[in-house]
Formats: sequence, C-alpha cells, structure tokens
Amino acid sequence: MAPHLDRLRKAEGIIRLHGHRGARGIWPENTIAGFKGTFDIGVQVVELDVLLTKDNIPVVTHNPILVPATTRGPDRQWLTSDHLNVSDLSYAELCNYDIGGIRSGTEYAKSYSEQAFMYGLRIPTLDAVAKLLSLPQYAQVWLNIEIKSIPIEEGLTPPPEQLARQVIEVIQQNQLERRVIVQSFDWRVLEHVKRMAPDLPRSHLTFLKTPSVNMDPNIYEGSPWMAGATTTHPDSDLCDVIADEGGQLWAPFHMNVNAGEVARAQAKGLIVNAWTVNAITDIDRMIDAGVDGIISDYPARVQRRLIERGYHWREDYAAQNTAL
Amino acid sequence: MAPHLDRLRKAEGIIRLHGHRGARGIWPENTIAGFKGTFDIGVQVVELDVLLTKDNIPVVTHNPILVPATTRGPDRQWLTSDHLNVSDLSYAELCNYDIGGIRSGTEYAKSYSEQAFMYGLRIPTLDAVAKLLSLPQYAQVWLNIEIKSIPIEEGLTPPPEQLARQVIEVIQQNQLERRVIVQSFDWRVLEHVKRMAPDLPRSHLTFLKTPSVNMDPNIYEGSPWMAGATTTHPDSDLCDVIADEGGQLWAPFHMNVNAGEVARAQAKGLIVNAWTVNAITDIDRMIDAGVDGIISDYPARVQRRLIERGYHWREDYAAQNTAL
Repeated sequence: MAPHLDRLRKAEGIIRLHGHRGARGIWPENTIAGFKGTFDIGVQVVELDVLLTKDNIPVVTHNPILVPATTRGPDRQWLTSDHLNVSDLSYAELCNYDIGGIRSGTEYAKSYSEQAFMYGLRIPTLDAVAKLLSLPQYAQVWLNIEIKSIPIEEGLTPPPEQLARQVIEVIQQNQLERRVIVQSFDWRVLEHVKRMAPDLPRSHLTFLKTPSVNMDPNIYEGSPWMAGATTTHPDSDLCDVIADEGGQLWAPFHMNVNAGEVARAQAKGLIVNAWTVNAITDIDRMIDAGVDGIISDYPARVQRRLIERGYHWREDYAAQNTAL
Repeated sequence: MAPHLDRLRKAEGIIRLHGHRGARGIWPENTIAGFKGTFDIGVQVVELDVLLTKDNIPVVTHNPILVPATTRGPDRQWLTSDHLNVSDLSYAELCNYDIGGIRSGTEYAKSYSEQAFMYGLRIPTLDAVAKLLSLPQYAQVWLNIEIKSIPIEEGLTPPPEQLARQVIEVIQQNQLERRVIVQSFDWRVLEHVKRMAPDLPRSHLTFLKTPSVNMDPNIYEGSPWMAGATTTHPDSDLCDVIADEGGQLWAPFHMNVNAGEVARAQAKGLIVNAWTVNAITDIDRMIDAGVDGIISDYPARVQRRLIERGYHWREDYAAQNTAL
C-alpha cells in the first residue's frame, strides 16, 4: 500500500473527514464556492462527482441529467423536466445553467434547508477544481473523485473506459497523482483506472439492498456494476472481494457496515470510508465501528462530534490535542 | 436621509440580510474567515463588534473579557476563567489567543453545534476587516459596526468618546464612510459619533426587559445607556426618541417589536433592523412585521425563507426574480 495513503487512514486520535459534494449541507453541491468553503474550514478531503460533456470534458456534477430542483436555465427559469443530459451538451452550453440554488417546495429543498442560495454558479470542470489544489493555502488537501457510470441504463453515461481516460488525463496534467483517490459504484471504471494508471488509488463504492433507502444497489449476484466480481455473502466477504480486486479503499454505505467488517477490511489493508453520514447517531455509530474516514454533507457537524469524542481529523490539529 | 442608505432599506420584493458576527451559526464569530465566508454566500452586510486593545487598536470581538468557551491560550489550553480583559492586552498579546473553536460541553457549544471548529484563528483588527472591503469581489458589501460600551460596569470598556474616535479613524482611513453603519446599545457612543462624524449613519440598538431572555435591558427610565434621552412608553414611542436624536437606523430585539412600531419608525424615515433572528417562526414574524433588515446567525436559513416567501435580499438577485 502506498505510504502517502496513510494520510487517509485513521491513526491514534484521528478519523478522517471527507466533505460530500463539497459540503452539501452548507453550500450548493459540486461547486467551486463549496469546495473552497469546505477546504477553508479545515476539511482535508473533498468528495466530488465527475461526468463528461459532449465535447469530452470532465465536469463536476452528480446526475447524468440536469436536475430541475437545482438548475436554472439561460432564461433564469427553473428547468421543468428531466430532459437535458450532460453528455449531450458542450461545456459552453452547460455554462448557460446556474446551479447555485435549490427550488423552493422541492424534496431537495426540504432535505437541505440550510444550504446557501447563490446566484451565477456554474458546473465546474474537473480541471478547474484540480487547479484549486495548486494554490498554496490548499497544499495539504485531497480530492475523492467519484466517476459516475450507470451500467443499468444503456447510454445514460459515457463508456467506462472513456470516463476513466479523461479523468486520469486531468489528474496527470495537474500532477495530482498523490493527492486523489478515484471511486466508483461501477467497478468497470476502476478496472480501467487500474489498467491505465495502476498507481492511482481506487476506492470501491458499495451499496447493498437497503429497504429504507430508495436507491439501486450495486452489490448482488450477477450485478453488472461489479466488473465480473462476485459475492455470495455480501455481509461478510465484500471486503475480501475488493482486496482481491486490488482495491485500496472501500466506501460502504454507513447502514451496510459494522465494526467486524471494518476490522476485517482494515486487516486486509483497506481504508474504509463510510458515506453519507449526517446524523449524530450515525456519526457516533461510524466512530464506534472504527472507520478510517467519514464522508458527510455536514463536515462541521462531524468536526464537533469528533472533538467531543476525543478525535481530530488532521495530524496538524491533533498536535494541538489540548483543544479537546 | 442619505440616499446611499437606500441599499439598507427594504424595497419591492427585497428585505435586507445582515450576518450576525459574520455568520456565527456556521463560522467562528467575528473572524476574517467567517466574514469572507458570509460575503461569499452573497450576504451583503456583516455585523461585527468592536473593542479597543491596551494599545488603542480597534479589534473585532464581542466580549470585553476573553470568553473561556471560545478561547485557547498560548499553551493551547482553554482559558479557565474570566480574567483577561481585551483592554488590558496589547494587540500583539491578543494574537496569542486562538478563537477558532468552541469548547465541548459548554452552553455555547450546545447553542452553536453546527459551527466549524477551526485552528489558528486570531481576533482581527477592524482595519484588517475594513481592508477586505477593498477587494474587488467585495465591492458591494457593507459593515454594520457595533461599538461595545457598557456603562453599567465602570471601567470594563474604554470611554465612549475614545471608542468612537478610534473606530471613526479606521473607517475614514479606509474610505468606508458610505459602506458602514455604526450601532451601539450605549447611545453615548452614538452621540460622540454624531459630533465627530455627523455623516456616518448611526443605528440605535434597543433591548427592553424581556422575561425569557437573560440580558440587561438598555431602555428604561433613567437608563445610563440612553445618553440622557428618556422614554416613558418604550412600547410605543421608542422610535420617536431615536428619530428625535437624529438616528437613521433602529435595531430592536425581535421580540420587542411589532408591525405597528416598524411602520411608525419607517414613517419617520428610520431603517429598522431586527436582531438576532434565527428561528424560522421568528424570521416569518419579522418579515410580516415589515422590517427593513434581518440580522441572523444563520443567513443561509434566512435566504431560503426569504426565497420561499417571495423575497430577495439584494437588487442584483431580485433582478433575477424568476429564481423564486
């Protein structure tokens, strides 16, 4: 395991903190403003999502289709339907859309009612975010780059190989090989990353069927997400499968993981980052489970809870441990 | 009334938004990081507090005595008692204290549990904050400068005249005369401001005895806070008193004001800014009362509620009114 990855591994008194889509609870998700804000409060890792435009430019946005609840068009009106696919728009066209606010009355607005409402924000290129990391004040920060690929809907997202290639190019052009990890629910993407850039740390995202959560699982027998890997007992051998694939990190949904599985994964050398952990009870459960990192929409809330529990999230802060 | 103050007055579809101590719900209060963060989410006015160091430098901090719950000393330990008066420390000495976090287990931590925990933050000079406003990205923003003076505790704060003089000097040196208002609970301070810089807009802070709130009122018969002004019916003639004093703005506690008083104040030309309005029900009540501005620890929450209620907080955003 690459020693530089120790920065993402838990240590004595340290549990790592990843801001989810920046810090979606506070700033509009996947925006430069949100990433800067998240770094500026001392969060060392920002998680973000990448897709490709029609002109093959990696851009930082979560959904293959522009989301009406968070997108205003060139006419300043909210989008009214799911009809604009990122991969059908050039980057210049994409820049006509303002993604700085959430439309009132939507489920999204209810879920993130404390998020700032901003004007004139654009979907950023991955390159623009990468260039943030060259600023001296961000010399210590990392990106957790999720590549969005959805194998169960033909043609919705670009081919996995193309996604991997374009993202790797931006990482290499910006010399960020040792300051990023690449994660995906679609393990085919990770296989391409492994082949094209074997030294880039890969993080296997997993989501089991969870009755209380309305989201497609990616781990099940015969899953097209798993790049040919199989698991017959996902509640016990999932980390073995990931370790066998040569993965270095495992990113399970927080409700799908417990202390035993975390310990088993860590014994195999895996770094375990749980997503997306927002409620105090869930933060506590993940601390107790012994994860290496917590991915949260509310990193400041996690900071407070970590401090209360006797933890820090960065070595330089831990050196000031009298702050607890 | 100076026309430039229209920027702080309500208008068709616009209610103004002031971030309280920056935005204390999100960032450590009265810090450069918090002020930048607040401006960066599109808040046009930041409220802050000013005191003087031993070497007579205006610094941005709320309490005359450094607060143990939010102050770590040069040994990185939390202060354990109320013993360090800002006016007994030089600015160089004050810079030994880190005010970036809240101590766990304190009432303050319970009240602001979502505030980021930061390291290495110092009490800023007013001059450093004033210089922020010269940055091109902050060309439109204002400061609401509260001068802290406490007449009921002899010697706790510097003489009102000295406070006024030093603050005015910083405002003038930075040519911010048309981008600030000066407020105080101690109206003697405002009298000195009026004499020394008659064109600086003055905001009269008021707090009536309120059973549910543990804080000293400044409005009562014979009050030393009122610079000789008197009110026998504070629930009806307070705005008359302020208008008679030549005040341009009135900053009442939100529980002490209703629609009738707001209308009466506005008819006399006063701008009414209610403090400190954090709960949705209180935000709604102040919108309904017709205030010009809302001062809040949670400006993003107010943004969302204003949008939901059909309001903006800046002209340039209101011009994009289809975002509602």
